[in-house]
Amino acid sequence: MEFARPTVSTSADINDREEGLAFQPKFDASGLLTCVATDAATGDVLMVAHMNDEALRKTIASGEAWYFSRSRGRLWRKGESSGHTQRVVEMRMDCDQDAIWIRVEQHGAACHTGRQSCFYRAVTTGDGGTQLSFVDADRLFDPNAVYRK
Amino acid sequence: MEFARPTVSTSADINDREEGLAFQPKFDASGLLTCVATDAATGDVLMVAHMNDEALRKTIASGEAWYFSRSRGRLWRKGESSGHTQRVVEMRMDCDQDAIWIRVEQHGAACHTGRQSCFYRAVTTGDGGTQLSFVDADRLFDPNAVYRK
Repeated sequence: MEFARPTVSTSADINDREEGLAFQPKFDASGLLTCVATDAATGDVLMVAHMNDEALRKTIASGEAWYFSRSRGRLWRKGESSGHTQRVVEMRMDCDQDAIWIRVEQHGAACHTGRQSCFYRAVTTGDGGTQLSFVDADRLFDPNAVYRK
Repeated sequence: MEFARPTVSTSADINDREEGLAFQPKFDASGLLTCVATDAATGDVLMVAHMNDEALRKTIASGEAWYFSRSRGRLWRKGESSGHTQRVVEMRMDCDQDAIWIRVEQHGAACHTGRQSCFYRAVTTGDGGTQLSFVDADRLFDPNAVYRK
């Protein structure tokens, strides 16, 4: 018995990456994947960050979100300073395996500014052009108290 | 009357970008922002893509999602080939203004493989190590029929 093979892509490697079940993360030139974390309870996007190979492996092994900070140039366990950790409920890979979606239980708040999500401003347009307006922007913690020198 | 200014960041420019209402997208070295599109109805992440300045402006002006394709090196109106457009219900900017979250009404399916979302495989671990398994992987369209040569 034969199964039809997908014929959209012309490269067997791409077919495999898109249609196969092998875990083949495709890191960019800087060795990173994009990761989107959403709140498992509300569905809201909490943050967009990056994972290198080590962050990805530690996240999978521990069930807690680890990232690679591009600004600090180092591995980073989410919540290591603030205590606001993320427990991973589900992890999904996208079609070409260069982006990860994690649904998480967020302890405390995700954003370093103290908000639940990093996306606390909506983009709006009007007579004054394009602007931002606060949405769900209440602070759940005081960043000055949490991130002490 | 004076208002307390945020004191977490040491740079006035960063404070402005994080706490202000000015629309100041921070494009990366390639001139791109990361964009996460979620389904306004289900909250599921549909895709992760990129916008350059023109894609961002066209999205805001038209209310339809435009992206910049890194692989094809050109601007791209979502659905221009497939008809599977995205109507933007809400657009949000993240804290440091280098990522955008759009909640969209997805016409048809978001993924070029025919699935509703690009995230149709979960990452699982077991005796065989880390693998993928299909989740919500039913095809809503036949990519061979939609993307004709």
